[in-house]
Amino acid sequence: MIPGVAADPALKARPAFRLVDEGAPQLRVTDLAATRGDGVFETVGVFDSRPANLTPHLERLQRSARMLDLPALDLDVLAQAVDAAVTAHLPVPELLVKIVVSRGVEGQARPSAWVFADAAPSYAAARAGLRVAALDRGIPTTAPQTSPWLLAGAKSLSYAINMAGLREASRRGADEVLFISSDGYALEGPTSTLLVKRGNRFLTTPVDAGVLPGTSLGSVFELVRGEGAEAAEELMTLAQVAESDGAWLLSSVRLACPITHLDDVELPVDRSLTDRLSAAIAGRK
Amino acid sequence: MIPGVAADPALKARPAFRLVDEGAPQLRVTDLAATRGDGVFETVGVFDSRPANLTPHLERLQRSARMLDLPALDLDVLAQAVDAAVTAHLPVPELLVKIVVSRGVEGQARPSAWVFADAAPSYAAARAGLRVAALDRGIPTTAPQTSPWLLAGAKSLSYAINMAGLREASRRGADEVLFISSDGYALEGPTSTLLVKRGNRFLTTPVDAGVLPGTSLGSVFELVRGEGAEAAEELMTLAQVAESDGAWLLSSVRLACPITHLDDVELPVDRSLTDRLSAAIAGRK
Repeated sequence: MIPGVAADPALKARPAFRLVDEGAPQLRVTDLAATRGDGVFETVGVFDSRPANLTPHLERLQRSARMLDLPALDLDVLAQAVDAAVTAHLPVPELLVKIVVSRGVEGQARPSAWVFADAAPSYAAARAGLRVAALDRGIPTTAPQTSPWLLAGAKSLSYAINMAGLREASRRGADEVLFISSDGYALEGPTSTLLVKRGNRFLTTPVDAGVLPGTSLGSVFELVRGEGAEAAEELMTLAQVAESDGAWLLSSVRLACPITHLDDVELPVDRSLTDRLSAAIAGRK
Repeated sequence: MIPGVAADPALKARPAFRLVDEGAPQLRVTDLAATRGDGVFETVGVFDSRPANLTPHLERLQRSARMLDLPALDLDVLAQAVDAAVTAHLPVPELLVKIVVSRGVEGQARPSAWVFADAAPSYAAARAGLRVAALDRGIPTTAPQTSPWLLAGAKSLSYAINMAGLREASRRGADEVLFISSDGYALEGPTSTLLVKRGNRFLTTPVDAGVLPGTSLGSVFELVRGEGAEAAEELMTLAQVAESDGAWLLSSVRLACPITHLDDVELPVDRSLTDRLSAAIAGRK
Protein backbone atom coordinates (compact mmCIF):
# COMPACT_ATOMS: atom_id res chain seq x y z
CA MET A 1 0.00 0.00 0.00
CA ILE A 2 2.78 2.45 0.84
CA PRO A 3 5.89 1.92 -1.22
CA GLY A 4 8.58 3.80 0.60
CA VAL A 5 11.62 5.32 -1.00
CA ALA A 6 14.54 6.47 1.10
CA ALA A 7 16.51 9.14 -0.73
CA ASP A 8 19.74 10.96 0.01
CA PRO A 9 18.70 14.57 -0.66
CA ALA A 10 22.22 15.79 -1.29
CA LEU A 11 23.03 12.87 -3.64
CA LYS A 12 26.12 11.87 -1.75
CA ALA A 13 25.22 8.19 -1.68
CA ARG A 14 24.96 5.80 -4.63
CA PRO A 15 22.40 4.60 -5.36
CA ALA A 16 20.75 7.89 -4.53
CA PHE A 17 17.66 6.09 -3.28
CA ARG A 18 16.38 2.62 -2.63
CA LEU A 19 12.98 1.00 -2.19
CA VAL A 20 12.30 -0.11 1.37
CA ASP A 21 9.85 -2.52 2.93
CA GLU A 22 6.52 -0.82 3.60
CA GLY A 23 5.68 -3.43 6.22
CA ALA A 24 8.60 -2.73 8.55
CA PRO A 25 9.53 0.43 10.48
CA GLN A 26 11.76 2.77 8.47
CA LEU A 27 12.77 5.49 10.95
CA ARG A 28 14.68 5.79 14.22
CA VAL A 29 13.01 7.27 17.27
CA THR A 30 15.98 9.66 17.34
CA ASP A 31 15.23 11.03 13.87
CA LEU A 32 14.77 14.79 14.25
CA ALA A 33 11.62 14.55 12.14
CA ALA A 34 10.08 12.59 15.02
CA THR A 35 11.72 14.34 17.98
CA ARG A 36 11.53 17.99 16.84
CA GLY A 37 9.32 18.16 13.73
CA ASP A 38 12.59 19.37 12.25
CA GLY A 39 12.35 18.94 8.51
CA VAL A 40 10.30 19.97 5.50
CA PHE A 41 7.78 18.24 3.28
CA GLU A 42 5.50 18.34 0.29
CA THR A 43 2.37 16.37 -0.57
CA VAL A 44 1.92 15.87 -4.30
CA GLY A 45 -1.35 14.86 -5.95
CA VAL A 46 -0.99 12.13 -8.57
CA PHE A 47 -3.82 11.83 -11.06
CA ASP A 48 -3.93 8.90 -13.51
CA SER A 49 -0.32 8.18 -12.48
CA ARG A 50 0.88 11.70 -13.37
CA PRO A 51 2.20 13.87 -10.52
CA ALA A 52 0.54 17.30 -10.77
CA ASN A 53 2.65 20.44 -10.45
CA LEU A 54 5.70 18.47 -9.38
CA THR A 55 8.12 21.27 -10.29
CA PRO A 56 6.40 23.88 -8.06
CA HIS A 57 6.32 21.30 -5.26
CA LEU A 58 10.03 20.58 -5.57
CA GLU A 59 10.86 24.28 -5.80
CA ARG A 60 8.80 24.96 -2.68
CA LEU A 61 10.55 22.10 -0.88
CA GLN A 62 13.89 23.67 -1.77
CA ARG A 63 12.65 27.04 -0.49
CA SER A 64 11.45 25.48 2.78
CA ALA A 65 14.77 23.67 3.19
CA ARG A 66 16.61 26.96 2.74
CA MET A 67 14.38 28.66 5.33
CA LEU A 68 15.26 25.88 7.81
CA ASP A 69 19.00 26.10 7.00
CA LEU A 70 19.01 22.60 5.54
CA PRO A 71 21.51 21.81 2.79
CA ALA A 72 20.52 22.34 -0.84
CA LEU A 73 18.45 19.43 -2.11
CA ASP A 74 19.10 17.52 -5.30
CA LEU A 75 15.66 17.94 -6.82
CA ASP A 76 16.38 15.53 -9.69
CA VAL A 77 16.94 12.69 -7.25
CA LEU A 78 13.74 13.55 -5.40
CA ALA A 79 11.80 13.67 -8.68
CA GLN A 80 13.16 10.24 -9.58
CA ALA A 81 12.13 8.96 -6.15
CA VAL A 82 8.61 10.30 -6.68
CA ASP A 83 8.44 8.47 -10.02
CA ALA A 84 9.72 5.30 -8.38
CA ALA A 85 7.09 5.51 -5.63
CA VAL A 86 4.29 6.08 -8.14
CA THR A 87 5.50 3.21 -10.33
CA ALA A 88 5.73 0.89 -7.35
CA HIS A 89 2.15 1.61 -6.29
CA LEU A 90 -0.86 -0.18 -7.76
CA PRO A 91 -2.38 2.04 -10.44
CA VAL A 92 -5.30 3.92 -8.87
CA PRO A 93 -7.01 7.10 -10.16
CA GLU A 94 -5.74 9.30 -7.34
CA LEU A 95 -2.56 8.89 -5.31
CA LEU A 96 -0.89 11.18 -2.88
CA VAL A 97 2.87 11.18 -2.63
CA LYS A 98 4.61 12.65 0.35
CA ILE A 99 8.22 13.87 0.13
CA VAL A 100 9.88 14.39 3.49
CA VAL A 101 13.33 15.81 4.20
CA SER A 102 14.50 15.45 7.80
CA ARG A 103 17.50 17.05 9.47
CA GLY A 104 18.41 13.42 10.16
CA VAL A 105 19.14 11.26 13.14
CA GLU A 106 20.15 13.33 16.17
CA GLY A 107 23.91 13.68 16.43
CA GLN A 108 24.68 12.45 12.91
CA ALA A 109 24.46 15.86 11.19
CA ARG A 110 23.32 14.18 7.99
CA PRO A 111 19.88 15.00 6.56
CA SER A 112 17.84 12.21 5.09
CA ALA A 113 14.76 12.03 2.92
CA TRP A 114 11.99 9.65 2.07
CA VAL A 115 9.09 9.49 -0.31
CA PHE A 116 5.94 7.44 0.01
CA ALA A 117 2.81 6.97 -2.05
CA ASP A 118 -0.64 6.09 -0.81
CA ALA A 119 -4.07 5.83 -2.41
CA ALA A 120 -5.96 9.05 -1.82
CA PRO A 121 -9.08 8.77 0.34
CA SER A 122 -12.34 10.12 -1.08
CA TYR A 123 -12.40 13.90 -1.04
CA ALA A 124 -15.97 14.07 -2.42
CA ALA A 125 -17.37 15.92 0.60
CA ALA A 126 -14.59 18.54 0.65
CA ARG A 127 -14.85 19.04 -3.11
CA ALA A 128 -18.61 19.62 -2.76
CA GLY A 129 -18.03 22.46 -0.32
CA LEU A 130 -16.46 23.45 2.97
CA ARG A 131 -17.72 25.11 6.09
CA VAL A 132 -14.70 27.13 7.17
CA ALA A 133 -13.89 28.59 10.59
CA ALA A 134 -11.67 31.68 10.68
CA LEU A 135 -8.98 31.24 13.34
CA ASP A 136 -6.33 33.61 14.59
CA ARG A 137 -2.83 32.47 13.52
CA GLY A 138 -1.28 34.65 16.22
CA ILE A 139 1.45 36.30 14.18
CA PRO A 140 1.35 39.35 11.91
CA THR A 141 1.93 39.48 8.14
CA THR A 142 5.21 41.27 8.85
CA ALA A 143 6.69 38.21 10.62
CA PRO A 144 8.69 36.94 7.59
CA GLN A 145 10.56 40.26 7.48
CA THR A 146 10.99 40.89 11.20
CA SER A 147 11.28 37.35 12.58
CA PRO A 148 12.33 34.77 9.98
CA TRP A 149 12.99 32.21 12.74
CA LEU A 150 9.21 31.93 13.13
CA LEU A 151 9.36 30.09 9.78
CA ALA A 152 6.15 31.67 8.46
CA GLY A 153 5.81 30.39 4.90
CA ALA A 154 8.07 27.35 5.36
CA LYS A 155 6.38 23.97 4.99
CA SER A 156 8.05 22.39 8.00
CA LEU A 157 7.09 19.13 9.68
CA SER A 158 6.00 21.12 12.74
CA TYR A 159 2.29 21.06 11.91
CA ALA A 160 0.85 20.53 15.40
CA ILE A 161 -0.79 23.98 15.33
CA ASN A 162 -2.30 23.31 11.91
CA MET A 163 -3.73 20.04 13.19
CA ALA A 164 -5.02 21.70 16.39
CA GLY A 165 -6.69 24.34 14.22
CA LEU A 166 -8.56 21.62 12.32
CA ARG A 167 -9.74 20.08 15.60
CA GLU A 168 -10.94 23.50 16.78
CA ALA A 169 -12.83 23.93 13.47
CA SER A 170 -14.46 20.57 14.04
CA ARG A 171 -15.54 21.64 17.53
CA ARG A 172 -17.18 24.65 15.87
CA GLY A 173 -19.04 22.44 13.40
CA ALA A 174 -16.77 23.42 10.52
CA ASP A 175 -14.72 21.29 8.12
CA GLU A 176 -11.76 23.54 7.59
CA VAL A 177 -9.81 26.55 8.81
CA LEU A 178 -8.90 29.89 7.31
CA PHE A 179 -6.04 31.30 9.37
CA ILE A 180 -6.12 35.07 10.01
CA SER A 181 -2.98 37.08 10.80
CA SER A 182 -2.83 39.07 14.05
CA ASP A 183 -3.04 42.23 11.91
CA GLY A 184 -6.36 41.08 10.48
CA TYR A 185 -5.62 39.56 7.07
CA ALA A 186 -6.74 36.24 5.60
CA LEU A 187 -3.75 33.94 5.24
CA GLU A 188 -4.27 30.32 4.16
CA GLY A 189 -5.69 27.02 5.36
CA PRO A 190 -3.68 24.59 7.50
CA THR A 191 -2.94 22.55 4.36
CA SER A 192 -4.35 24.72 1.58
CA THR A 193 -4.07 28.00 -0.33
CA LEU A 194 -6.78 30.68 -0.37
CA LEU A 195 -8.29 31.78 -3.69
CA VAL A 196 -10.90 34.54 -3.75
CA LYS A 197 -13.01 35.88 -6.64
CA ARG A 198 -13.91 39.56 -6.47
CA GLY A 199 -15.71 40.65 -9.63
CA ASN A 200 -13.43 39.74 -12.50
CA ARG A 201 -10.37 39.34 -10.27
CA PHE A 202 -8.97 36.20 -8.68
CA LEU A 203 -6.86 36.93 -5.63
CA THR A 204 -4.62 35.02 -3.27
CA THR A 205 -2.60 35.99 -0.20
CA PRO A 206 0.84 37.45 -1.02
CA VAL A 207 3.67 35.05 -0.25
CA ASP A 208 5.55 37.79 1.58
CA ALA A 209 2.73 37.91 4.14
CA GLY A 210 4.02 34.61 5.49
CA VAL A 211 2.01 31.97 3.60
CA LEU A 212 3.27 29.07 1.51
CA PRO A 213 3.60 29.73 -2.20
CA GLY A 214 0.61 27.72 -3.48
CA THR A 215 1.81 25.04 -5.88
CA SER A 216 -1.53 25.06 -7.73
CA LEU A 217 -1.60 28.78 -8.36
CA GLY A 218 0.34 28.62 -11.61
CA SER A 219 -2.28 26.32 -13.17
CA VAL A 220 -5.17 28.26 -11.66
CA PHE A 221 -3.93 31.69 -12.73
CA GLU A 222 -3.28 30.40 -16.25
CA LEU A 223 -6.84 29.10 -16.45
CA VAL A 224 -8.58 32.23 -15.22
CA ARG A 225 -6.42 34.55 -17.29
CA GLY A 226 -7.28 32.40 -20.30
CA GLU A 227 -10.93 33.04 -19.48
CA GLY A 228 -10.34 36.80 -19.47
CA ALA A 229 -10.05 37.42 -15.73
CA GLU A 230 -7.28 39.10 -13.74
CA ALA A 231 -5.21 37.16 -11.21
CA ALA A 232 -3.01 38.64 -8.50
CA GLU A 233 -1.64 38.47 -4.98
CA GLU A 234 -3.42 40.89 -2.67
CA LEU A 235 -3.94 41.15 1.07
CA MET A 236 -7.59 40.71 2.04
CA THR A 237 -9.34 41.12 5.36
CA LEU A 238 -11.67 38.43 6.65
CA ALA A 239 -14.61 40.74 5.83
CA GLN A 240 -13.43 41.11 2.23
CA VAL A 241 -13.30 37.33 1.82
CA ALA A 242 -16.75 37.00 3.39
CA GLU A 243 -18.18 39.59 0.96
CA SER A 244 -16.46 38.10 -2.10
CA ASP A 245 -18.03 36.49 -5.16
CA GLY A 246 -16.65 33.10 -4.18
CA ALA A 247 -13.68 31.60 -2.38
CA TRP A 248 -11.84 28.30 -2.45
CA LEU A 249 -9.23 26.43 -0.50
CA LEU A 250 -6.84 24.95 -3.05
CA SER A 251 -4.98 21.74 -2.31
CA SER A 252 -2.80 19.50 -4.43
CA VAL A 253 -4.80 16.44 -3.48
CA ARG A 254 -8.28 17.79 -2.63
CA LEU A 255 -8.12 20.23 -5.59
CA ALA A 256 -10.42 23.33 -5.56
CA CYS A 257 -12.78 23.10 -2.60
CA PRO A 258 -15.38 25.88 -2.57
CA ILE A 259 -16.03 27.63 0.72
CA THR A 260 -19.78 27.48 1.28
CA HIS A 261 -19.68 29.12 4.70
CA LEU A 262 -17.04 31.34 6.29
CA ASP A 263 -18.01 31.29 9.97
CA ASP A 264 -21.70 32.22 9.73
CA VAL A 265 -21.58 33.88 6.31
CA GLU A 266 -22.76 31.93 3.27
CA LEU A 267 -20.69 32.40 0.12
CA PRO A 268 -21.79 31.93 -3.48
CA VAL A 269 -20.55 28.73 -5.16
CA ASP A 270 -19.98 28.40 -8.91
CA ARG A 271 -19.91 24.64 -9.57
CA SER A 272 -18.80 24.89 -13.18
CA LEU A 273 -15.93 27.23 -12.36
CA THR A 274 -14.95 24.99 -9.43
CA ASP A 275 -14.79 22.00 -11.77
CA ARG A 276 -12.58 23.90 -14.20
CA LEU A 277 -10.28 25.00 -11.38
CA SER A 278 -9.98 21.43 -10.11
CA ALA A 279 -9.27 20.08 -13.58
CA ALA A 280 -6.55 22.70 -14.01
CA ILE A 281 -4.90 21.75 -10.71
CA ALA A 282 -5.05 18.05 -11.53
CA GLY A 283 -3.60 18.67 -14.97
CA ARG A 284 -6.77 17.29 -16.56
CA LYS A 285 -7.73 20.43 -18.43
CA MET B 1 23.54 3.19 23.58
CA ILE B 2 19.85 3.97 23.16
CA PRO B 3 17.62 1.38 24.74
CA GLY B 4 14.20 2.00 23.28
CA VAL B 5 10.96 1.18 25.00
CA ALA B 6 7.72 1.19 23.06
CA ALA B 7 4.81 1.84 25.39
CA ASP B 8 1.05 1.82 24.94
CA PRO B 9 0.12 5.10 26.67
CA ALA B 10 -3.47 4.08 27.32
CA LEU B 11 -2.44 0.67 28.68
CA LYS B 12 -4.74 -1.21 26.35
CA ALA B 13 -2.08 -3.72 25.33
CA ARG B 14 -0.40 -6.31 27.55
CA PRO B 15 2.49 -6.16 28.13
CA ALA B 16 2.15 -2.40 28.36
CA PHE B 17 5.63 -1.93 26.93
CA ARG B 18 8.47 -3.90 25.46
CA LEU B 19 12.16 -3.35 24.84
CA VAL B 20 13.02 -2.92 21.19
CA ASP B 21 16.24 -3.18 19.22
CA GLU B 22 18.14 0.12 19.31
CA GLY B 23 20.00 -0.86 16.14
CA ALA B 24 16.96 -1.16 13.88
CA PRO B 25 14.40 1.45 12.83
CA GLN B 26 11.45 1.63 15.22
CA LEU B 27 8.98 4.02 13.52
CA ARG B 28 6.93 4.17 10.32
CA VAL B 29 7.36 7.06 7.93
CA THR B 30 3.58 7.49 8.27
CA ASP B 31 3.78 8.05 12.04
CA LEU B 32 2.20 11.42 12.75
CA ALA B 33 5.19 12.28 14.96
CA ALA B 34 7.29 12.29 11.79
CA THR B 35 4.74 13.67 9.29
CA ARG B 36 3.11 16.41 11.40
CA GLY B 37 5.15 16.83 14.59
CA ASP B 38 1.85 15.72 16.11
CA GLY B 39 2.58 14.46 19.58
CA VAL B 40 4.03 15.54 22.91
CA PHE B 41 7.25 14.83 24.76
CA GLU B 42 9.38 15.27 27.84
CA THR B 43 13.13 15.06 28.35
CA VAL B 44 14.06 13.87 31.82
CA GLY B 45 17.49 14.28 33.39
CA VAL B 46 18.81 11.16 35.12
CA PHE B 47 21.60 11.70 37.65
CA ASP B 48 23.38 8.70 39.18
CA SER B 49 20.60 6.52 37.72
CA ARG B 50 17.82 8.52 39.45
CA PRO B 51 15.35 10.39 37.21
CA ALA B 52 15.00 13.94 38.53
CA ASN B 53 11.57 15.49 38.93
CA LEU B 54 9.90 12.60 37.12
CA THR B 55 6.45 13.38 38.56
CA PRO B 56 6.40 17.00 37.30
CA HIS B 57 7.57 15.72 33.90
CA LEU B 58 4.81 13.13 33.71
CA GLU B 59 2.20 15.64 34.88
CA ARG B 60 3.36 18.11 32.25
CA LEU B 61 3.20 15.38 29.59
CA GLN B 62 -0.39 14.68 30.63
CA ARG B 63 -1.16 18.41 30.41
CA SER B 64 0.41 18.66 26.95
CA ALA B 65 -1.53 15.59 25.80
CA ARG B 66 -4.76 17.18 26.98
CA MET B 67 -3.93 20.43 25.13
CA LEU B 68 -3.44 18.39 21.94
CA ASP B 69 -6.67 16.41 22.48
CA LEU B 70 -4.75 13.17 22.91
CA PRO B 71 -6.27 10.49 25.15
CA ALA B 72 -5.41 10.45 28.84
CA LEU B 73 -2.05 8.79 29.42
CA ASP B 74 -1.36 6.04 31.89
CA LEU B 75 1.50 7.73 33.73
CA ASP B 76 2.34 4.63 35.76
CA VAL B 77 3.14 2.70 32.59
CA LEU B 78 5.28 5.56 31.31
CA ALA B 79 7.12 5.77 34.65
CA GLN B 80 7.81 2.04 34.44
CA ALA B 81 9.07 2.46 30.90
CA VAL B 82 11.44 5.22 32.05
CA ASP B 83 12.79 2.92 34.75
CA ALA B 84 13.20 0.13 32.21
CA ALA B 85 15.11 2.41 29.84
CA VAL B 86 17.40 3.64 32.63
CA THR B 87 18.03 0.09 33.83
CA ALA B 88 18.81 -1.10 30.31
CA HIS B 89 21.40 1.64 29.78
CA LEU B 90 25.01 1.34 30.94
CA PRO B 91 25.37 3.19 34.23
CA VAL B 92 26.75 6.65 33.48
CA PRO B 93 26.68 9.75 35.71
CA GLU B 94 24.22 11.66 33.51
CA LEU B 95 21.57 10.23 31.23
CA LEU B 96 18.77 11.91 29.39
CA VAL B 97 15.55 10.02 28.87
CA LYS B 98 13.05 11.14 26.28
CA ILE B 99 9.37 10.19 26.55
CA VAL B 100 7.43 10.69 23.33
CA VAL B 101 3.69 10.24 22.77
CA SER B 102 2.60 10.33 19.14
CA ARG B 103 -0.91 10.53 17.74
CA GLY B 104 0.12 7.31 16.01
CA VAL B 105 0.39 6.00 12.49
CA GLU B 106 -1.77 7.99 10.09
CA GLY B 107 -5.18 6.41 9.63
CA GLN B 108 -4.92 4.05 12.61
CA ALA B 109 -6.38 6.45 15.21
CA ARG B 110 -4.28 4.79 17.91
CA PRO B 111 -1.66 6.86 19.78
CA SER B 112 1.64 5.24 20.58
CA ALA B 113 4.54 6.10 22.85
CA TRP B 114 8.19 5.36 23.24
CA VAL B 115 10.93 6.08 25.69
CA PHE B 116 14.65 6.14 25.07
CA ALA B 117 17.72 6.81 27.15
CA ASP B 118 21.03 8.22 25.99
CA ALA B 119 24.21 9.34 27.72
CA ALA B 120 24.09 13.10 28.18
CA PRO B 121 26.74 15.06 26.29
CA SER B 122 28.93 17.46 28.27
CA TYR B 123 27.04 20.58 29.27
CA ALA B 124 30.10 22.16 30.94
CA ALA B 125 30.07 25.22 28.65
CA ALA B 126 26.36 25.92 29.12
CA ARG B 127 26.62 25.44 32.87
CA ALA B 128 29.50 27.95 33.00
CA GLY B 129 27.35 30.61 31.40
CA LEU B 130 25.23 31.51 28.39
CA ARG B 131 25.20 34.36 25.96
CA VAL B 132 21.50 34.73 25.24
CA ALA B 133 19.79 36.45 22.31
CA ALA B 134 16.29 37.82 22.89
CA LEU B 135 14.03 36.81 20.01
CA ASP B 136 10.43 37.70 19.24
CA ARG B 137 8.13 34.67 19.68
CA GLY B 138 5.47 36.37 17.57
CA ILE B 139 2.45 35.74 19.76
CA PRO B 140 1.12 37.65 22.79
CA THR B 141 0.86 36.41 26.38
CA THR B 142 -2.92 36.36 25.92
CA ALA B 143 -2.73 33.60 23.28
CA PRO B 144 -3.55 30.72 25.68
CA GLN B 145 -6.85 32.40 26.55
CA THR B 146 -7.83 33.71 23.11
CA SER B 147 -6.35 31.06 20.80
CA PRO B 148 -5.72 27.72 22.51
CA TRP B 149 -5.16 26.05 19.13
CA LEU B 150 -1.82 27.90 18.96
CA LEU B 151 -0.74 25.41 21.67
CA ALA B 152 1.28 27.98 23.62
CA GLY B 153 2.50 26.15 26.69
CA ALA B 154 2.13 22.63 25.25
CA LYS B 155 5.35 20.66 24.81
CA SER B 156 4.50 19.35 21.35
CA LEU B 157 6.87 17.66 18.93
CA SER B 158 6.53 20.67 16.62
CA TYR B 159 9.79 22.32 17.68
CA ALA B 160 11.03 23.60 14.32
CA ILE B 161 10.64 27.23 15.46
CA ASN B 162 12.53 26.52 18.67
CA MET B 163 15.37 24.96 16.65
CA ALA B 164 15.34 27.86 14.15
CA GLY B 165 15.57 30.27 17.09
CA LEU B 166 18.71 28.51 18.30
CA ARG B 167 20.28 28.77 14.83
CA GLU B 168 19.42 32.49 14.74
CA ALA B 169 21.07 32.91 18.16
CA SER B 170 24.16 31.19 16.83
CA ARG B 171 24.26 33.57 13.86
CA ARG B 172 24.23 36.40 16.42
CA GLY B 173 27.15 34.91 18.33
CA ALA B 174 24.92 33.73 21.17
CA ASP B 175 24.47 30.29 22.73
CA GLU B 176 20.82 30.42 23.62
CA VAL B 177 17.51 32.19 23.13
CA LEU B 178 15.12 34.01 25.40
CA PHE B 179 11.79 34.24 23.60
CA ILE B 180 9.85 37.51 24.02
CA SER B 181 6.08 37.75 23.56
CA SER B 182 4.67 40.16 20.99
CA ASP B 183 3.38 42.26 23.91
CA GLY B 184 6.91 42.63 25.25
CA TYR B 185 7.33 40.08 28.04
CA ALA B 186 10.12 37.58 28.62
CA LEU B 187 8.79 34.06 28.09
CA GLU B 188 11.20 31.10 28.17
CA GLY B 189 14.02 29.50 26.23
CA PRO B 190 13.40 27.07 23.35
CA THR B 191 14.07 24.17 25.75
CA SER B 192 14.37 25.89 29.12
CA THR B 193 12.58 27.89 31.82
CA LEU B 194 13.50 31.44 32.81
CA LEU B 195 14.48 32.21 36.41
CA VAL B 196 15.27 35.77 37.44
CA LYS B 197 16.60 37.15 40.73
CA ARG B 198 15.44 40.65 41.67
CA GLY B 199 16.66 41.60 45.11
CA ASN B 200 15.43 38.88 47.43
CA ARG B 201 12.83 37.60 44.95
CA PHE B 202 13.17 34.75 42.46
CA LEU B 203 10.74 35.10 39.57
CA THR B 204 9.64 33.04 36.61
CA THR B 205 7.18 33.62 33.79
CA PRO B 206 3.56 32.81 34.70
CA VAL B 207 2.33 29.61 33.07
CA ASP B 208 -0.85 31.35 31.91
CA ALA B 209 1.29 33.63 29.72
CA GLY B 210 1.81 30.65 27.43
CA VAL B 211 5.02 29.04 28.66
CA LEU B 212 5.62 25.47 29.77
CA PRO B 213 5.31 24.81 33.49
CA GLY B 214 8.98 24.36 34.39
CA THR B 215 9.54 20.92 35.86
CA SER B 216 12.53 22.14 37.89
CA LEU B 217 10.69 25.03 39.54
CA GLY B 218 9.39 23.00 42.46
CA SER B 219 12.92 22.05 43.52
CA VAL B 220 14.27 25.54 42.84
CA PHE B 221 11.52 27.39 44.69
CA GLU B 222 11.90 25.04 47.66
CA LEU B 223 15.64 25.77 47.77
CA VAL B 224 15.40 29.54 47.60
CA ARG B 225 12.51 29.73 50.05
CA GLY B 226 14.59 27.61 52.41
CA GLU B 227 17.31 30.24 52.08
CA GLY B 228 14.86 33.00 53.06
CA ALA B 229 14.01 34.37 49.62
CA GLU B 230 10.63 34.83 47.96
CA ALA B 231 9.67 32.90 44.85
CA ALA B 232 6.81 33.71 42.49
CA GLU B 233 5.44 33.82 38.96
CA GLU B 234 5.53 37.35 37.57
CA LEU B 235 5.55 38.87 34.09
CA MET B 236 8.81 40.66 33.32
CA THR B 237 9.84 42.80 30.40
CA LEU B 238 13.11 42.19 28.60
CA ALA B 239 14.47 45.35 30.25
CA GLN B 240 13.57 44.04 33.71
CA VAL B 241 15.44 40.81 33.06
CA ALA B 242 18.43 42.75 31.72
CA GLU B 243 18.49 44.92 34.87
CA SER B 244 18.04 41.99 37.26
CA ASP B 245 20.45 40.66 39.88
CA GLY B 246 20.96 37.47 37.92
CA ALA B 247 19.06 35.22 35.53
CA TRP B 248 19.21 31.55 34.55
CA LEU B 249 17.80 29.24 31.96
CA LEU B 250 16.73 26.09 33.81
CA SER B 251 16.75 22.74 32.06
CA SER B 252 16.22 19.21 33.31
CA VAL B 253 19.44 18.02 31.71
CA ARG B 254 21.63 21.14 31.55
CA LEU B 255 20.45 22.24 35.05
CA ALA B 256 20.81 25.93 36.06
CA CYS B 257 22.71 27.79 33.34
CA PRO B 258 23.48 31.40 34.29
CA ILE B 259 22.88 34.06 31.67
CA THR B 260 26.11 36.03 31.39
CA HIS B 261 24.91 38.26 28.54
CA LEU B 262 21.39 39.12 27.42
CA ASP B 263 21.94 40.58 23.96
CA ASP B 264 24.63 43.19 24.74
CA VAL B 265 23.94 43.52 28.45
CA GLU B 266 26.18 41.72 30.92
CA LEU B 267 24.42 40.16 33.90
CA PRO B 268 25.89 39.37 37.33
CA VAL B 269 26.62 35.68 37.95
CA ASP B 270 26.59 34.08 41.39
CA ARG B 271 28.53 30.82 41.01
CA SER B 272 27.74 29.45 44.44
CA LEU B 273 24.02 30.07 44.06
CA THR B 274 24.13 28.56 40.58
CA ASP B 275 25.72 25.42 41.98
CA ARG B 276 23.04 25.14 44.65
CA LEU B 277 20.28 25.62 42.07
CA SER B 278 21.79 22.92 39.85
CA ALA B 279 22.15 20.50 42.74
CA ALA B 280 18.51 21.09 43.68
CA ILE B 281 17.34 20.39 40.11
CA ALA B 282 19.45 17.24 39.88
CA GLY B 283 18.15 16.05 43.24
CA ARG B 284 21.71 16.14 44.63
CA LYS B 285 21.02 18.69 47.33
